[in-house]
Amino acid sequence: MLKWYEETGENEDVVISSRVRLARNLSKYPFPIRLSKEQAKNLLDEFKAKLATLAGEGDRNYKYLSMDAISDTDKVALVERHLLSEALVMKTEPAGAMLSEDEVVSILFNEEDHVRIQALAGGMNLEKAWQVADQLDNEINQSFSYAYHEKLGYLTSFPTNVGTGLRVSYMLHLPAIAGTKRLAGIAADIGRFGVTIRGNGIGNLYQIYNQKTLGQTEEEIMQNLTTIASQIIKQERRIRKKLTQENPISIEDTLLRSYGVLKYCKTLEIEEGMNLLSDIQFGLTSGILKQKEGAKKSIYPLMMGIQPAHLQQLAGKPLDDKGRNIIRAEYVKGHLPEILV
Amino acid sequence: MLKWYEETGENEDVVISSRVRLARNLSKYPFPIRLSKEQAKNLLDEFKAKLATLAGEGDRNYKYLSMDAISDTDKVALVERHLLSEALVMKTEPAGAMLSEDEVVSILFNEEDHVRIQALAGGMNLEKAWQVADQLDNEINQSFSYAYHEKLGYLTSFPTNVGTGLRVSYMLHLPAIAGTKRLAGIAADIGRFGVTIRGNGIGNLYQIYNQKTLGQTEEEIMQNLTTIASQIIKQERRIRKKLTQENPISIEDTLLRSYGVLKYCKTLEIEEGMNLLSDIQFGLTSGILKQKEGAKKSIYPLMMGIQPAHLQQLAGKPLDDKGRNIIRAEYVKGHLPEILV
Repeated sequence: MLKWYEETGENEDVVISSRVRLARNLSKYPFPIRLSKEQAKNLLDEFKAKLATLAGEGDRNYKYLSMDAISDTDKVALVERHLLSEALVMKTEPAGAMLSEDEVVSILFNEEDHVRIQALAGGMNLEKAWQVADQLDNEINQSFSYAYHEKLGYLTSFPTNVGTGLRVSYMLHLPAIAGTKRLAGIAADIGRFGVTIRGNGIGNLYQIYNQKTLGQTEEEIMQNLTTIASQIIKQERRIRKKLTQENPISIEDTLLRSYGVLKYCKTLEIEEGMNLLSDIQFGLTSGILKQKEGAKKSIYPLMMGIQPAHLQQLAGKPLDDKGRNIIRAEYVKGHLPEILV
Repeated sequence: MLKWYEETGENEDVVISSRVRLARNLSKYPFPIRLSKEQAKNLLDEFKAKLATLAGEGDRNYKYLSMDAISDTDKVALVERHLLSEALVMKTEPAGAMLSEDEVVSILFNEEDHVRIQALAGGMNLEKAWQVADQLDNEINQSFSYAYHEKLGYLTSFPTNVGTGLRVSYMLHLPAIAGTKRLAGIAADIGRFGVTIRGNGIGNLYQIYNQKTLGQTEEEIMQNLTTIASQIIKQERRIRKKLTQENPISIEDTLLRSYGVLKYCKTLEIEEGMNLLSDIQFGLTSGILKQKEGAKKSIYPLMMGIQPAHLQQLAGKPLDDKGRNIIRAEYVKGHLPEILV
C-alpha cells in the first residue's frame, strides 16, 4: 500500500497534504487532565483490546505504540512526520497511539483528549481524509460511548474544540507568496473567515486550518477551508507565473543553483536544506526543472527525511549538530530526484 | 606546441604564471611620444619586414597583428589573455604586435616604447621566460640598434623603466591569504624590497613585480622577486593547510558547493565566476577536490575564457550584460573539469 505522500493528489503544485483531526472523549472516563494514572492505563488497555480488530475503510495495517515503549528519537521522528503530536510525546502520564502502515491514520490516546483521530491525504483531498477519519470515528463509537452534549456536540478538554471536534487543514507550499510580503495581508484576510495560517517560513511550508469547531457542520467547515485554500492557490500560481515570465533565466538559474548546492554540499543545516528543497519542489511542480518522464514530483518525503530525529534514526547513534549536518548532506544527495539539464 | 598555460610548472599550486618584459627603443627613431604618424608607419614596416624570419629560441610560429586591422573585441580579448596591453590597444597612432602561437611571446610595437618583448611561462618559471625574452632581444638587436646609454643602460619613455628595461612578475593565486586581512601587511613588507603587489581581489589573483629597473643586474632583479615570491608561497600554503586541518569538512563543502553552482547555474557574473573558479583552482591544486588521474589542474584558461571579450568572440555578436552572463554560464559548464565525488 502506498504511503499517502507517494500518491498523486489534486493541486499538488501548491498543496502538499490535507488533514482531518477529530477530538473525542469517552463518557465513562474523566477527561485526561483529571484522569488518574491507573484510569489512564485502563483506558489504554481497553483501546488496545477493542481496536486490535480495527478495520477503517481500507485494508490498512495498524500497529499500536505505547509511549513508554519507544525511544525519544523514534517519538520525535514520528512528530516530524506529523503522525504524533508534540503534546502526546511530552506526556508523562500513560499515552499511546495507533498508526497505519501507509501513514494515513494516526489515532492518539490520552493526549489532550482521550481520542484524537487523524487522517492525512496527499494533495488537496480533504474529502478523502474525511472519509477515513469519519469511518474510524463511527467504528470507535461502536465500542465506546463518546462524551456528547445535545446542544454543544462533542465535548473536549479545550473549549476551542467543542462541537464537531473537527480540525481540518491543508499544508501549502507557498514559495512565490512568501517571496512577496503578502503573507501578513493574507493572514488578516482569511482570519475574517475563521481560518488561521501558521508557518515559520522554513521551506515555505504553511498550514491553514479552521479555528471554529462550533456552529457549523463538518461539511461547512471543510467547504470554507477549501474555498480559502483555492484563493491562496490561485494567488500563488499567479505570482509564480509572473516571476517565471518576467525573468525565466533568473528563476531557472536560482532553482538549478539550489540543485547544484544540494547535489554537492558536504554539510547542510536544516533551515538551508528546507529552503533549497523548497526550490526543487517549486521547480518540479512548475515544470521549470525537468525530470525523467513519470518521476515523482513531490520532494516532501525528503523534507521529512532531513529532519533531526530522522537523521538520528538513520545514523543509529546520537549526533551533534555538526555530525547531523554531514549526514543530512549525504542523505539529500542519496535521495535527490535526478534533474535533467 | 602546447600553450604556456597547458604545461605544468613549478609551484603551480600558488603560481599561475611567470612573466618577463623588456622595454627597448630604437636609436634611429624618436621616442614614441615624438614619433610622427609616418615615422611610426615606417618603423612598423621595418619591424614586419625584418621580423618575418623571427626565430627566437624555439620553433614558434609568429603572426603579426596591425592594431588598425583587428576588431575592438579581438583586441580586448588579447588584453584579457595578457598578450596585448591596454596602452597598446588604446593607441590611435600606428601600432602593432607579434604574437607566438603558443602565447608565450608577444612583442608590442609602438606602445610606450618602440619595442616591448614579453614572455610568459606557466608556474614559477621566470628563468624560462627570461631565456625566451633574452634571445628575442638579442635577435632583434641584430637588426636594429637600441637607444642605449653607457651609464644608464637602455633608455625608455618612462624613467621608471630605464636601465635594464626589465619588469619581471609572478601571477599568484592567493585564496588563503586573501581570506585573512594580511595583504596590506604583505604589500608593505615587500615594498621595502622594491616589489609591488597588485590585484583587485577578484578570483584571488595577484601580481607581484619589481619596481626598480636600475642599479641591479637582470639576475639580481629576478632573484629578488623569486625570493619574495617564495616567502608569499610559504605563507599561502601555511594558511591553506591550517584552514584545511581546522575544518576539513567545511572547506570541502565550500569548494564543492562552488563546483555545484558552476555546474548548474544558467547565468553568471564575471566577478562571481572568477571567485567560484578560484575555489576550484584552490581545491584542485590542494588535493581537496579530486579529479581523474592525469587531468589538468589549472583552471586559469577558464578564467581567461569567461572574460567579457572572450565571450563576445564566442557568441560572434555584440552581447549585453545579461546575454554575456548566460553565455558565461554555458561556457563554464562546457569547460569545467570533472570533479570526482
